Amino acid sequence: MLDAFIRHPFMSRAGAAALTPRAFVEAMCRVERALARVQERAGLLPAGTSAAIETQLKVDAFDLDRLGTETADGGNVAIPFVKQAKALLADELGDYFHVGATSQDILDTALMLVLRPRLEAILVRLGESRRHGVALMHRHAQTPMIGRTLMQQAMPITFGAKVAQWLWGLAQSEKRLGEIKAHGLFVQFGGPVGVHTGLADNGPSLMDALADELGLTRAILPWHTDRQPILALADALGAVAIAAEKIALDVALMAQTEIGELSEPAGTGAGGSSSMPHKRNPVGCARIRAAARQIHANVAMLHNVGAQPMERGLGEWHAEWAPLVDNVVLAEGALDTLSVLLRDLNVHADAMRHNLKLTGSAFLARPAVAVLSQHMGPERAEHLVNDAIRQTTTDPRELADTLLDQPDVAGAVDAGMLRAALDPLANTGASQALVERVGRALAAM
Amino acid sequence: MLDAFIRHPFMSRAGAAALTPRAFVEAMCRVERALARVQERAGLLPAGTSAAIETQLKVDAFDLDRLGTETADGGNVAIPFVKQAKALLADELGDYFHVGATSQDILDTALMLVLRPRLEAILVRLGESRRHGVALMHRHAQTPMIGRTLMQQAMPITFGAKVAQWLWGLAQSEKRLGEIKAHGLFVQFGGPVGVHTGLADNGPSLMDALADELGLTRAILPWHTDRQPILALADALGAVAIAAEKIALDVALMAQTEIGELSEPAGTGAGGSSSMPHKRNPVGCARIRAAARQIHANVAMLHNVGAQPMERGLGEWHAEWAPLVDNVVLAEGALDTLSVLLRDLNVHADAMRHNLKLTGSAFLARPAVAVLSQHMGPERAEHLVNDAIRQTTTDPRELADTLLDQPDVAGAVDAGMLRAALDPLANTGASQALVERVGRALAAM
Amino acid sequence: MLDAFIRHPFMSRAGAAALTPRAFVEAMCRVERALARVQERAGLLPAGTSAAIETQLKVDAFDLDRLGTETADGGNVAIPFVKQAKALLADELGDYFHVGATSQDILDTALMLVLRPRLEAILVRLGESRRHGVALMHRHAQTPMIGRTLMQQAMPITFGAKVAQWLWGLAQSEKRLGEIKAHGLFVQFGGPVGVHTGLADNGPSLMDALADELGLTRAILPWHTDRQPILALADALGAVAIAAEKIALDVALMAQTEIGELSEPAGTGAGGSSSMPHKRNPVGCARIRAAARQIHANVAMLHNVGAQPMERGLGEWHAEWAPLVDNVVLAEGALDTLSVLLRDLNVHADAMRHNLKLTGSAFLARPAVAVLSQHMGPERAEHLVNDAIRQTTTDPRELADTLLDQPDVAGAVDAGMLRAALDPLANTGASQALVERVGRALAAM
Amino acid sequence: MLDAFIRHPFMSRAGAAALTPRAFVEAMCRVERALARVQERAGLLPAGTSAAIETQLKVDAFDLDRLGTETADGGNVAIPFVKQAKALLADELGDYFHVGATSQDILDTALMLVLRPRLEAILVRLGESRRHGVALMHRHAQTPMIGRTLMQQAMPITFGAKVAQWLWGLAQSEKRLGEIKAHGLFVQFGGPVGVHTGLADNGPSLMDALADELGLTRAILPWHTDRQPILALADALGAVAIAAEKIALDVALMAQTEIGELSEPAGTGAGGSSSMPHKRNPVGCARIRAAARQIHANVAMLHNVGAQPMERGLGEWHAEWAPLVDNVVLAEGALDTLSVLLRDLNVHADAMRHNLKLTGSAFLARPAVAVLSQHMGPERAEHLVNDAIRQTTTDPRELADTLLDQPDVAGAVDAGMLRAALDPLANTGASQALVERVGRALAAM
Repeated sequence: MLDAFIRHPFMSRAGAAALTPRAFVEAMCRVERALARVQERAGLLPAGTSAAIETQLKVDAFDLDRLGTETADGGNVAIPFVKQAKALLADELGDYFHVGATSQDILDTALMLVLRPRLEAILVRLGESRRHGVALMHRHAQTPMIGRTLMQQAMPITFGAKVAQWLWGLAQSEKRLGEIKAHGLFVQFGGPVGVHTGLADNGPSLMDALADELGLTRAILPWHTDRQPILALADALGAVAIAAEKIALDVALMAQTEIGELSEPAGTGAGGSSSMPHKRNPVGCARIRAAARQIHANVAMLHNVGAQPMERGLGEWHAEWAPLVDNVVLAEGALDTLSVLLRDLNVHADAMRHNLKLTGSAFLARPAVAVLSQHMGPERAEHLVNDAIRQTTTDPRELADTLLDQPDVAGAVDAGMLRAALDPLANTGASQALVERVGRALAAM
Repeated sequence: MLDAFIRHPFMSRAGAAALTPRAFVEAMCRVERALARVQERAGLLPAGTSAAIETQLKVDAFDLDRLGTETADGGNVAIPFVKQAKALLADELGDYFHVGATSQDILDTALMLVLRPRLEAILVRLGESRRHGVALMHRHAQTPMIGRTLMQQAMPITFGAKVAQWLWGLAQSEKRLGEIKAHGLFVQFGGPVGVHTGLADNGPSLMDALADELGLTRAILPWHTDRQPILALADALGAVAIAAEKIALDVALMAQTEIGELSEPAGTGAGGSSSMPHKRNPVGCARIRAAARQIHANVAMLHNVGAQPMERGLGEWHAEWAPLVDNVVLAEGALDTLSVLLRDLNVHADAMRHNLKLTGSAFLARPAVAVLSQHMGPERAEHLVNDAIRQTTTDPRELADTLLDQPDVAGAVDAGMLRAALDPLANTGASQALVERVGRALAAM
Repeated sequence: MLDAFIRHPFMSRAGAAALTPRAFVEAMCRVERALARVQERAGLLPAGTSAAIETQLKVDAFDLDRLGTETADGGNVAIPFVKQAKALLADELGDYFHVGATSQDILDTALMLVLRPRLEAILVRLGESRRHGVALMHRHAQTPMIGRTLMQQAMPITFGAKVAQWLWGLAQSEKRLGEIKAHGLFVQFGGPVGVHTGLADNGPSLMDALADELGLTRAILPWHTDRQPILALADALGAVAIAAEKIALDVALMAQTEIGELSEPAGTGAGGSSSMPHKRNPVGCARIRAAARQIHANVAMLHNVGAQPMERGLGEWHAEWAPLVDNVVLAEGALDTLSVLLRDLNVHADAMRHNLKLTGSAFLARPAVAVLSQHMGPERAEHLVNDAIRQTTTDPRELADTLLDQPDVAGAVDAGMLRAALDPLANTGASQALVERVGRALAAM
Repeated sequence: MLDAFIRHPFMSRAGAAALTPRAFVEAMCRVERALARVQERAGLLPAGTSAAIETQLKVDAFDLDRLGTETADGGNVAIPFVKQAKALLADELGDYFHVGATSQDILDTALMLVLRPRLEAILVRLGESRRHGVALMHRHAQTPMIGRTLMQQAMPITFGAKVAQWLWGLAQSEKRLGEIKAHGLFVQFGGPVGVHTGLADNGPSLMDALADELGLTRAILPWHTDRQPILALADALGAVAIAAEKIALDVALMAQTEIGELSEPAGTGAGGSSSMPHKRNPVGCARIRAAARQIHANVAMLHNVGAQPMERGLGEWHAEWAPLVDNVVLAEGALDTLSVLLRDLNVHADAMRHNLKLTGSAFLARPAVAVLSQHMGPERAEHLVNDAIRQTTTDPRELADTLLDQPDVAGAVDAGMLRAALDPLANTGASQALVERVGRALAAM
């Protein structure tokens, strides 16, 4: 399949490289070995069984291609895996292998095992992004720019305040995902119908022991058709994707040629076009946005198959695997890019300052009238200010300078005071306070 | 619009009745009044202003129809609301009303206010469902039935164990939603570009005071284009919907004429068909499933508009309202039905017992061979058991009885012991232990 | 419910006003009356029956509120409708009313009846949009602007060529929807299980006669759980929405303050902000985009419930109504706005020309080198051109003028010829040819 | 990546095997070669150029791994492809290669080329499925079964009538997809901003010539950001998926142990469970349903990225590739399975007949009363029939026999006539007429 050209480019390279068929077989072996150990410890298997299984169950001995092909027949890879595994084991071990387990036990648990390091990698990237972002935020705590609503220039903010927004979005998603990683990767062990058939009342304690053995979270119940754990994970990844997508969207908008306030660093893949050397494509943003769109679709799909019939689904479970695994590696890929973006982002403070003047600093009308009104009638003040804004729109100067050209302003108002009042930075509201507020909140994480 | 015929039937009646245009105007008034109070308290408004606003801002004075019509023009209802509100206030109050606020501040905060009681209602219904479910679970802790995987009969469970699964799914979603209700309904207050323009550094403390005044959660930052709070709420509602949908799906499957193990109580709307008196349609399940499907689509939509550009979106925010509000009232509607379903569900334990015999109790092959092998060669045991299963398939008796018809079984094996070993309930694994485990976990919630 | 504030503003006013509960009851009455007529004509009812039903079945006599409330109980509005209808009819007519019909027959067919005029209205708006767009396209067939890829300035096009793209997108969706309107609004008539139970072999011919009587398309089979007709309609509406959304997205991007090439006309709701008089919010675009996002979610939902079990679904059918009806009225709403947008769009050709110079007309490098190379060595030509582009970036003049400042250019190259070669319009490729091509294709529709 | 275990099993093996990176490079080469030919023919390239390119552009010379890796950097595979291609060509050919093309031209067109044979394969499978289905439909034109609505037994149909429903759903989707295959796979050729920059007015005719050369449909305009062609294809595949999913859903429901009217043939992967030999899992149905769910999510995603900004998108285009390609191969996979399912489906007419009696043939109440009323008072008739139905529910006999046990029935009514009237097949409405109607419609396709 074309995956290498159409899907993998949006994924984390490290993630995609780690999640190989071989790694998955290794994870399934880990589950089976751990199961044997806890069953032996509980006295259900003869002493030495788990050591023998450990020795004889070699990942290298599996025929990975056949596993792939036979997956279609049985519907899931654990079925041919168990078949091959039994063939690898000495005959007398056959009855002591996979005892009380069903294919979904092995597959769901192995998925948790292989996804855990990827979630850790995502959390590392989120931490990195947070740290790079905090530096960027403080660096630009006093860099004024125009805020934009409905894509129109509105009122001034600082770029630091915008970065604060980005980071707080990311931080909320980091908390959600961190919570899942710490307490929401459950062991799956329930046997054919989720009640530990054949194990009688040993089932629940074996289920707990298996969780402990594998370092997974203990489950109250097997969750063959209770997919709340999968949904919580999927939703948290969706939240991460959206936090990253928001940043990529803003960067791409601010990198538009006509705005030019940001540009992507080289490290995210941004590059020129051979036929158009003046272009610098925000390819990193495009990749993040493409990944996020796929993640949203996959989240939707996981919700749509969330309610699964009876004790095991009829295709719903099968439909979960690709969207879930993809979303992990797509989110990791988006964060690989985002981390570099936040570290190396090119900020053009001069362009920000230039764009502030494009509407004749119309956003300063209110403070300008306020200052002038202290020295003249409010109608006159308003008239002078509107006039000055009109002039400044076509001749981009500081509004204070245009006003001071007027004799009755220059004569009445202290120039330094007027300039201070009409400095864009002085009109960015609580931008700096908000930056500090977010800085504290992030430091407390 | 046709809402009354095509959408409202899947919603909570109480919820839909509460969420009127009038109630929303009332909520917007509450936000504005609270804002005036905290600003007056902070010394930003003359003493007495907030009391005057309180007196003059009467919900009854608003022209609700015009609000609806003018919403389209400006894009959101807060714009005509502020216009009408200012017209209601004495002229001198105009400058002290809506100070530093933007329409999204009022609308987002008012939404939180009107949705909060609906979330409380959902949590009440979840609690009720849990309690009814726990009673049902314990009532059937020893009611054996066949477990089904890929919609095929598999191995026995108890109906109590199935209910335990349902309840634990619900409980996980209840925890998520409860968390949001308690700590995730944030105040929105940021002014035109989210930095408290014109309020300087008073902004953040006013934002906190407003949250406290309204009993909402304090926000670190305004969240005009950081929609993580909306996503967390939407996802939690999605989880609730899926937990309910799973139950409805199982009930509908088990209520199939040929299975007949459950039937819907009258209270959920289940009813006969005039032309087909033998039918009892699981209309409650159909309604829950229809609501859940709509909820999934709305969650997907909220994820797709989750990344919003710059300081305020261009349609993304607008697109959120209907899916979010619908999902709350659809989830409440699903739970209204679910609560009755769990309270009054008709359980046909006889049909469960009957269906256990449909495959000749094939699932008892293993324990049957185990018992017989203690008295004869394993090949002979296996042969006898297979024979008996084949007979029992066409003549639905207890497998033990069929076996005891064989002289060499009757002669060798203690009948009582065989019957006990082949009692379906004795072969439901840890079903009873799992019921107790879930019972304890639910009691600890 | 809050529909008036959160959903209806994105819908067509005419559409929402037409689709009332009363209108739907009227449509259900039309179906029942037509059914009586064709059955009487086929000799299945006593002569005069249909006339009597016609007389006695008065829309005004229905209790619409009760219909709404009872819809929840039975699951669909046709059930209480038939009950109320029978109560309105003389006793002896009871047996001759709704003969052989099931509630889904009435509801699906009535939906087609009420949606048809809305589809016609959409097609009218599509035609209008096409005509307004064609005028706009031809008006700007020679208006050069910069084309943008990945949101970066790339190479010149004409605004006419961009409009051609918009129109051809719309035209493709118009064709799809027109096809459905003409041949894809099917009669539904199948009785309880889709085989005309009780009507024996008269069923198919009655089904055809009913279609003819109501002016709907004849169906090969009842389509109770074959939802291909609904999907085809939903998909076509989705295509319309996307065509409109693409235009709204481009307009909103080009209306950004810094780009300023387009602005929304007043008629689409665009308006100033009281606190920010320099703003002109593209509210029409926001509304179109919000509508489109909801339409996408609804299309997804209709696909997800497209496969419906057995002879009638268990909630899947119920889940279809709101998304389908909403999509029709949301699409109509988007086109109401789009039609005005295309008619009255403010085009700022001067801003387009200004923006072309922002990168020093870098996109003219190739033709400039080509002309100069005819008079000097290619290295020298390239050097001079790169120099001139660098200068022009900071001093936005025509590139030809900057080049002609160089003595060895002015001395060697004919100024008029150079100016002609470097005219942006001369570098818009096949823009004008494509405009004519699309003009012809649209004229042939 | 894990694709081999989690995604490919739901895809067509032939499809996945055909869509290799190598095959895609081959397709890109075909596009470039064809472009050179039509440009040479138009006199834009020196004679012999295209032959030289043909000779020098060898698929085997490409470094496929590097193409994959570098795709991430530039954002799409055509960028590194063109770089490698130029390195393969003699220097003097460099200027004559990829003339006037942009990476999206090559990639979109190459996609159409590689997807076309897959669409042909899907259409072949649809044709096969239709033929197998027609045989199945006619074979069971007179096999009565109970129809089910809301998953409850309702009234009788024939299995043939159900198959007719399946086939007509499939046929509608086949028509849509066939239309796209024949007229909707467009050439993409527009250059950097879609107006054939640098080719002047030759662009449109080259675009047409390229279409003809490659056997693709001529496009009125380049469609870089007009994604209507992709949407139409995606929607048609969605329709195919839903038609298949409906069949898989019905088969799985009817294969439930308690219903047992159908079972999956061995060829679809259905198989026993080693621990539960009595089980026969409908694995083929599970696979079809899993594929369909993924297809729905991908369709939704394609709609959500359908509106792409300006002259080329920012991630929206990139996001399309995987869902589109996946959907083609998932649909092909579903049909590979469906075709076998329809050919070899095990139909248990005896179980159908058995299930008809489960409600005491309650669905025969109306015809039974009708017959008896000819010989006695209607009250007496109704009383006798209700009694007989009640008896028949617990003792599954033919209703006619139970009635004839009553002396006043046996004495009054002709037994043969009563049996004929109460034969289930006689009460399947127009089932047989509908089968013939669909048979004719399918034959006319």
